Amino acid sequence: MGPLCRSLPVQLPMRFNQQAAMECTREARVTDLPQSGPLIEAFDVQLFRENTESVLAKLEKHLADLSIRGLELTDPAQLTRMARALMTTEHEKTAAFDEAKLSAIVDLYIRTGIQVHSPGYMGRQFSGVVPLSGVIDFVSSVVNQPSSFYEAGQLPNVVERIMADELNRFIGYRPGTFDMVTTSGGSLANLTALLTARNRAFPGVWARGGPELAGPARPAVAVGADVHYSVARAAGILGIGEDRIVRLPLDTARRIDVSRAGPALDAAERQGLDVFCLVASAGTTSVGAFDPLDELAALSRERGLWLHVDGAHGASLLVSDELRHKLRGIDQADSLAWDAHKMMFVPAPCTLLFYRNREHSREAFRQTASYVFDAQPGVYTALDSGDKNFECTKRPMMMTLWVLWAMYGRALFAEKIEYLCRLTRDAHAILEKQDDFETLHFPEANIMCFRYRPEWLADDEVAQFQVDIRNRIKQDGQFFISKVDVDGVAALRVVMMNHQITTEHFQMLLGEIRKAGRKK
Amino acid sequence: MGPLCRSLPVQLPMRFNQQAAMECTREARVTDLPQSGPLIEAFDVQLFRENTESVLAKLEKHLADLSIRGLELTDPAQLTRMARALMTTEHEKTAAFDEAKLSAIVDLYIRTGIQVHSPGYMGRQFSGVVPLSGVIDFVSSVVNQPSSFYEAGQLPNVVERIMADELNRFIGYRPGTFDMVTTSGGSLANLTALLTARNRAFPGVWARGGPELAGPARPAVAVGADVHYSVARAAGILGIGEDRIVRLPLDTARRIDVSRAGPALDAAERQGLDVFCLVASAGTTSVGAFDPLDELAALSRERGLWLHVDGAHGASLLVSDELRHKLRGIDQADSLAWDAHKMMFVPAPCTLLFYRNREHSREAFRQTASYVFDAQPGVYTALDSGDKNFECTKRPMMMTLWVLWAMYGRALFAEKIEYLCRLTRDAHAILEKQDDFETLHFPEANIMCFRYRPEWLADDEVAQFQVDIRNRIKQDGQFFISKVDVDGVAALRVVMMNHQITTEHFQMLLGEIRKAGRKK
Repeated sequence: MGPLCRSLPVQLPMRFNQQAAMECTREARVTDLPQSGPLIEAFDVQLFRENTESVLAKLEKHLADLSIRGLELTDPAQLTRMARALMTTEHEKTAAFDEAKLSAIVDLYIRTGIQVHSPGYMGRQFSGVVPLSGVIDFVSSVVNQPSSFYEAGQLPNVVERIMADELNRFIGYRPGTFDMVTTSGGSLANLTALLTARNRAFPGVWARGGPELAGPARPAVAVGADVHYSVARAAGILGIGEDRIVRLPLDTARRIDVSRAGPALDAAERQGLDVFCLVASAGTTSVGAFDPLDELAALSRERGLWLHVDGAHGASLLVSDELRHKLRGIDQADSLAWDAHKMMFVPAPCTLLFYRNREHSREAFRQTASYVFDAQPGVYTALDSGDKNFECTKRPMMMTLWVLWAMYGRALFAEKIEYLCRLTRDAHAILEKQDDFETLHFPEANIMCFRYRPEWLADDEVAQFQVDIRNRIKQDGQFFISKVDVDGVAALRVVMMNHQITTEHFQMLLGEIRKAGRKK
Repeated sequence: MGPLCRSLPVQLPMRFNQQAAMECTREARVTDLPQSGPLIEAFDVQLFRENTESVLAKLEKHLADLSIRGLELTDPAQLTRMARALMTTEHEKTAAFDEAKLSAIVDLYIRTGIQVHSPGYMGRQFSGVVPLSGVIDFVSSVVNQPSSFYEAGQLPNVVERIMADELNRFIGYRPGTFDMVTTSGGSLANLTALLTARNRAFPGVWARGGPELAGPARPAVAVGADVHYSVARAAGILGIGEDRIVRLPLDTARRIDVSRAGPALDAAERQGLDVFCLVASAGTTSVGAFDPLDELAALSRERGLWLHVDGAHGASLLVSDELRHKLRGIDQADSLAWDAHKMMFVPAPCTLLFYRNREHSREAFRQTASYVFDAQPGVYTALDSGDKNFECTKRPMMMTLWVLWAMYGRALFAEKIEYLCRLTRDAHAILEKQDDFETLHFPEANIMCFRYRPEWLADDEVAQFQVDIRNRIKQDGQFFISKVDVDGVAALRVVMMNHQITTEHFQMLLGEIRKAGRKK
């Protein structure tokens, strides 16, 4: 019928199935585009420009504000009332766009958040992003190209492969034989790696489930005692069992003590456990310790274990010539989780999961779905990752990292990471000179735990005192720090993620801690 | 020591542990902030403004371009070369910021992506976002407030609770007794719901793993035959087993046929399966069918099954008075997955997982981790969701949806969804009048599958012909459509996500399909 069909009247009687009869009779007609109302307004391009400009001015001010500030903690009930007051009610729905309301919302959002760009922020592993990565993420939000399928996001898929090769220069897998997928966060990367290890060790589980794990020995995973909670959580999810986590003893620097790891694995075996995977940490969450990867790789090889490295925090040190040695042996790991949203300073989430052996990356998930996975792979579908990553719709997260890398090379990252680690060592040196502070470890990276112990403080009050101090600072202070248990006793913790922090700021923090301590 | 300590020289001899001796000797000093180089440049606020303005101009043009276009498919090898050519090489790392390079990158990114804002885009469930939601996501990318913990993102946490209440007005759970968490995508929401159901049905599994599932009967999950692939995948992950998925028969409208569901469950039981969960779909991926939730809720109650509804695509119809009836019975579901990044038109991912019973939301994960979960919950930690959602660091995804809701109320969403469903019904009516096209179902929502069957086409060529047409259109066409198997035979599929599409565009698509068919 060709172009003629375009002008055919379609209001004529139609065939339709029974169930739909009522709807069709009422509504079928040539569909007209609405000409006004919220829908037209919401897609108005001029309004988009105005809103972006308004937001840009606020973000610019926010980034330029280097004042030292902590949290502005608001009672949730009060904040709820403030947020509710900014909402359009049902009867107002035809009102014109209210710029003042949007402005108030964005101000409230920025003000009540964690101030990652302030030198007062020393509390968590969240990053004050490199501003350009935020700009690129803005593009991603508007063009909305999911990256699990090449056809939907061609450049994101291509740059995933490029960045895999770029970063592998520092990992050292054999070019062309490894693989990398992106995942929505480090927890999902750890889960995916453990799933791969489980499926390889117990091939029947994927199809036939947990009963396949009911052999004479119980499947188990060995970890360092300070491993991130997502690993034990993954064991609970995967049907391995949270209780089947074998915690290997640590040395005084809170790294897995290899000399005691072998005997601990033997003991686990005697208790009826079948350890199939060892998870090492490259930068533990609590103190930033790096497990000895080369020795653990040898141990894993010897015992036929899958070696997964949770490098969510510390893998980024690989890009620094000065710091790379902390991950010696990483090229022998079977898998590696790496959060670029931590020490590569891009918006969260942006996690990379590397596999030493390319074949393994297809063993986590084993599926077909006709509307997403093509039966006949071709040049365009070869880059699809939907069968290798958990997500179906996945943010094109690699774009932010790639653009920074494309514009600045690795110098940007190496310079910042080296500064942060140096700063933390200098802070440690400062602490060591204070009689009223106790250091707990030498900082291998940019995380440091310590306790405030003025001489008048009784030993049995130490733990609660640290919690109290953290809470006082959180609620009233100029700084944001965190709390962590070290050897079962609460400690204060700083994470240096902002290169605009200097040792001066750290010394101010010590003053604030002392002041908070006097309140007792 | 007070403020004096700020000026203390710290280059004096220090105590440090043995392993760190070398590093300390070489590097410890009062840390200076670098004064120039890529790090300083990258955080330059003026440059941030200039880059944002440059990107804004491109996005503005992109949004205003309503030309009819499909994919601009590029060979991955060629695109890789283009991307590589835009990267700074190691020796150029000190070069000044290259605006032209950034401009070329962003142009390439926008041009090679799926054109979700064009009326030629009819192919997937990805959304051309409401522009304001992209602007808010930009704020989120720069301020970087993860939303698993109240202290890190106060407003995101508060608006999660507000939106849970707002949207529950259309679900109908009893206020104050239900719960909602956000997750990074629908697959993760489905996994979390099934995990909760598994943990409740088999309480020992979380701690002791799969062997707990090795009772006389095998744990199993019943689903509609058209359920999303993430559900079977979840069974593989959770130790239930992908083979333990019981596929319930569908009626002619491709909904679960309740009259045959009971007998199918009985048959599964006789085969030694212990079905503990039923997954219904509210908007299947392939044809957009809505399973009869009220009847399935009765069936689930009768048999003691957890009823999970995958409403990733179709739950958004709840906000429309006209369309809500398709989800009748949703208030009886134990859990509901709802992708706001589909039919609420915000950037991906933004998924909501509702639980009818608030207590159940804490049964998916059962953990402690001192640096994130406070032992003593207080007013500020009561809103933390880290123990209820999988992610540790989680994007503050609710901000985009809440701001649209706050500015426009639900009218924006209802108007757009109603238009898209009306458009799809009208497209169906058009198809019904064409002798050379075959309709396969009445479109309940905005998804429609059909086949092109000119009279000269042999029956055994129908399936391959649809694939060929889809491929030709993908590579050369003005439109983007997808392919799906219906009853094991390939079909063409349109998903109407863009309100700028009219029936005129659909008729043009039919012309293009006919043209592609002639190429054979």
